[in-house]
Amino acid sequence: MMMMMMMQRLRRSEEFIRFGFTSLINLRPNKNSVSRSLSGFVNHYDTKGKLFESKNGNHYNTELHHRCLGKNLGMLQQYKCFGSSSASQIERNPLFSSLDSKDVSYFKEILGDKNVVEDEERLETANTDWMQKYKGSSKLMLLPKNTEEVSQILQYCDSRRLAVVPQGGNTGLVGGSVPVFDEVIINVGLMNKVLAFDEVSGVLVCEAGCILENLATFLDTKGFIMPLDLGAKGSCHIGGNVSTNAGGLRLIRYGSLHGTVLGLEAVTANGNVLDMLGTLRKDNTGYDLKHLFIGSEGSLGIVTKVSILTQPKLSSVNLAFIACKDYLSCQKILVEAKRNLGEILSAFEFLDSNSMDLVLNHLDGVRNPVSSTENFYILIETTGSDETNDREKLEAFLLKSLEKGLVSDGVIAQDINQASSFWRIREGITEALQKAGAVYKYDLSLPVEEIYNIVNDLRGRLGDLANVMGYGHLGDGNLHLNISAANYNDKLLGLIEPYVYEWTSKHRGSISAEHGLGVMKANEIFYSKSPETVAIMASIKKLLDPKGILNPYKVLPHSLISH
Amino acid sequence: MMMMMMMQRLRRSEEFIRFGFTSLINLRPNKNSVSRSLSGFVNHYDTKGKLFESKNGNHYNTELHHRCLGKNLGMLQQYKCFGSSSASQIERNPLFSSLDSKDVSYFKEILGDKNVVEDEERLETANTDWMQKYKGSSKLMLLPKNTEEVSQILQYCDSRRLAVVPQGGNTGLVGGSVPVFDEVIINVGLMNKVLAFDEVSGVLVCEAGCILENLATFLDTKGFIMPLDLGAKGSCHIGGNVSTNAGGLRLIRYGSLHGTVLGLEAVTANGNVLDMLGTLRKDNTGYDLKHLFIGSEGSLGIVTKVSILTQPKLSSVNLAFIACKDYLSCQKILVEAKRNLGEILSAFEFLDSNSMDLVLNHLDGVRNPVSSTENFYILIETTGSDETNDREKLEAFLLKSLEKGLVSDGVIAQDINQASSFWRIREGITEALQKAGAVYKYDLSLPVEEIYNIVNDLRGRLGDLANVMGYGHLGDGNLHLNISAANYNDKLLGLIEPYVYEWTSKHRGSISAEHGLGVMKANEIFYSKSPETVAIMASIKKLLDPKGILNPYKVLPHSLISH
Repeated sequence: MMMMMMMQRLRRSEEFIRFGFTSLINLRPNKNSVSRSLSGFVNHYDTKGKLFESKNGNHYNTELHHRCLGKNLGMLQQYKCFGSSSASQIERNPLFSSLDSKDVSYFKEILGDKNVVEDEERLETANTDWMQKYKGSSKLMLLPKNTEEVSQILQYCDSRRLAVVPQGGNTGLVGGSVPVFDEVIINVGLMNKVLAFDEVSGVLVCEAGCILENLATFLDTKGFIMPLDLGAKGSCHIGGNVSTNAGGLRLIRYGSLHGTVLGLEAVTANGNVLDMLGTLRKDNTGYDLKHLFIGSEGSLGIVTKVSILTQPKLSSVNLAFIACKDYLSCQKILVEAKRNLGEILSAFEFLDSNSMDLVLNHLDGVRNPVSSTENFYILIETTGSDETNDREKLEAFLLKSLEKGLVSDGVIAQDINQASSFWRIREGITEALQKAGAVYKYDLSLPVEEIYNIVNDLRGRLGDLANVMGYGHLGDGNLHLNISAANYNDKLLGLIEPYVYEWTSKHRGSISAEHGLGVMKANEIFYSKSPETVAIMASIKKLLDPKGILNPYKVLPHSLISH
Repeated sequence: MMMMMMMQRLRRSEEFIRFGFTSLINLRPNKNSVSRSLSGFVNHYDTKGKLFESKNGNHYNTELHHRCLGKNLGMLQQYKCFGSSSASQIERNPLFSSLDSKDVSYFKEILGDKNVVEDEERLETANTDWMQKYKGSSKLMLLPKNTEEVSQILQYCDSRRLAVVPQGGNTGLVGGSVPVFDEVIINVGLMNKVLAFDEVSGVLVCEAGCILENLATFLDTKGFIMPLDLGAKGSCHIGGNVSTNAGGLRLIRYGSLHGTVLGLEAVTANGNVLDMLGTLRKDNTGYDLKHLFIGSEGSLGIVTKVSILTQPKLSSVNLAFIACKDYLSCQKILVEAKRNLGEILSAFEFLDSNSMDLVLNHLDGVRNPVSSTENFYILIETTGSDETNDREKLEAFLLKSLEKGLVSDGVIAQDINQASSFWRIREGITEALQKAGAVYKYDLSLPVEEIYNIVNDLRGRLGDLANVMGYGHLGDGNLHLNISAANYNDKLLGLIEPYVYEWTSKHRGSISAEHGLGVMKANEIFYSKSPETVAIMASIKKLLDPKGILNPYKVLPHSLISH
């Protein structure tokens, strides 16, 4: 639909806009949604991770190049993980019951046989995260059809102290949506109905299992868009988006889910259904509890329904690719773009020359759209309601930036192929990194003025040992810091970690901008949060889930919640 | 400053835009900030409430026409309230200690003599809310200069079980910021420093006692604006704004504080300092606890520092005043405005003909800007970065709406006086209501399609007994429902309440869109929130404030937190 609209617009397009050295046109490509990760990058994992044993007995995944948490010791043998840099081990909480045949019978009674999944192949899929980094050993997946069934399941599991893992589209990147050991999987995929849509207010109410792309398709027929857009939209569920506070591509424009989610229904560990499903923009009656469930990764309750403020679909989209010589100029352009394009700005992404070189060297058919080789490149996308005005605004802005010397060169895409080729550079970095060898990946939020300092510092620290690249959602202060090396080795890792976490912590950054903590970074929370706040988080966890059955071993440090 | 800019723009303005029957120009007037209430209306209370005894022994305030909560019985005699429709009584919690001289000595030790206020006149002011509706009997106001002092005060009060009321600018409308009985007042007015401002990200970090208007003035020099604007901005503190989740005039554009506040520092009842003062747009590391403190009206902790995302100041502001014949057209225009003006829309207010007639009848020098007398009137404001484009966009939108028959007449303000006269109609309603006689005021959030149904239903229900008026922030779904009558009487009140609350509850509305619950509506929370969620709120209150010393008798039902 989007593509069709773009093509129609393209056919209508008559004039070519000239800016910088070349002339191009318009518009964002239709994204291959499934192949893009939550952070907006293309990921192609054709094979499962091949393991080899390292010197110190840890496992490595040759595709993903991460250190493994798991060791084959006692209860730990069930826990397989190939993606974390954390060296800590997790033990199965011995207080949790183990599933028995009576449990299965009970679940079949309330859900019906076919929604109680014991089939090994389906469980294999449900036990494994989509990057093949984490693997649990659950023997049971439950598929509730409505809130009442979720409530009955949880009430039973709580009384039996059976641990559960809530699962949506299972597209998370930190092992939050798969079991660590034998937790019962509660997948809400059958709860996929749109319940209401109000064309006046733009408020959509739907069940948690709705796939994001399906919601987008539904809204498209009404002339609206979701306030978030993710690479994983073809699989991810809105309930999962809410539970992980997913960021994505539209955050710079429409803000986080804490602002756009108007209401929720959630079921707590004891089966209590919390109706917080308001559809109002303004409601100051008591504590706004829904925020506890946004981003708590299913550890406080299972989100069953969502009310969200959608946005009118606007007709005009433009994309510019510009080059500039230093990071200070990037910052200044961001400030100017916010001021001059403010109301139509919809993306502001950057990459450094190391990233550009990597893409040019490793991906076929990619070329630098600007003539000059510079230290930094920026993509600026605008979305608005008036084609002529918006285009003029973008052009005027770019010309002004050129005159000020902030921009050394730049182009505006003149057709969908050009737009696609611009995005290909930005989104191809991850693919190029994988082709280049071993890669250490970090997803950091930092004050914008500090973002490139960590890249430079790390470059100085690592010298010839590795190629350090910086790119990401500059408009949101979200850096994707990637370190590429010929081989994966402990000396290099020792130089990177905990240095990167400590650096981030020292500058009041976040060690997880948009992916959450899951099982991967649960023990690293103190790099971004104070002990006092983490203690309160643990108290709230205990208040809402006293037996700790909801998504155990995730989000909070294991020492705080495993008793 | 704003006025100067507007005048300069006015002098530059050469062309007059014609739309509908008349030709006018541009721009928002500089608001008399002190005289406007949080909901955006002008309030003039020149005298204190004069009391008279009603048949059933309750007190009434002749200016404010609300039933009084207080009766002169035992501990209740200290509690004076002239503004609530709730009939329930509040008793001083006997578990709280009473202040003694040792306490005062201790506070003088840590704060210094001059910041421990015992002066009767100053206490009189601090004990009384700005509408003169609520009055406490505190004997002590403390003025901490920094977080450490707030922490020491609370640690001491918690150990002594001395109740406290956190106070900012004391501009609230529901009695949340004054003592109910003898609570110690902790006013953060001396904590008024801007701590940091990042021109790249637009993130401002400041102390809680900063006055909103001072922050706006500071930002103006940097070319930024606060994401919220309130009538009370000349007095209210940013800490109070955050604690009450203040709405205001820019909510339709920039969203609620849950979206724009990036971080907080808060001190809990036991003196624990919670550092949640992040400056990042994206941070998914654990539960986002700051949301508990946004809108909890100081009952979970005292906010001491705030980090907030500010917005670039845009240069072009336009204001249209239009008439339409039915509410359905108003809804359709809202939908079209969101779509066609989406990115520049900054206000969408409506009033009905009863409201218009009232203003025309009771306020001097006000005239209807459009020639036709219609059932509804709408104000549409746009704010953008491009004067010509924005104006063209607004004109095109209005012409289209005229062609479609949604609008019967309309004008665009051509100068500041015209803009001011348009706003005067909308903002003069409260003043006109007071001149008209007794008035019952309700601040409701409702689904937009239901907003005018309650007005019609109530009109049918009350018949000739009263004049029912509907107006408010239509773009945010916020109705100000006002019932005007010659005299205040119980029969009328009995017809209105609990009917209005029940109607609102039935349609999943909120009985407090933007003012909070305070002491006025603490017991009415169940009209908008489920018992399960209120129970969790009470649990969280007990978790963070086990002795209940923080702003007691407010927000939550007294029965749940008074032990």
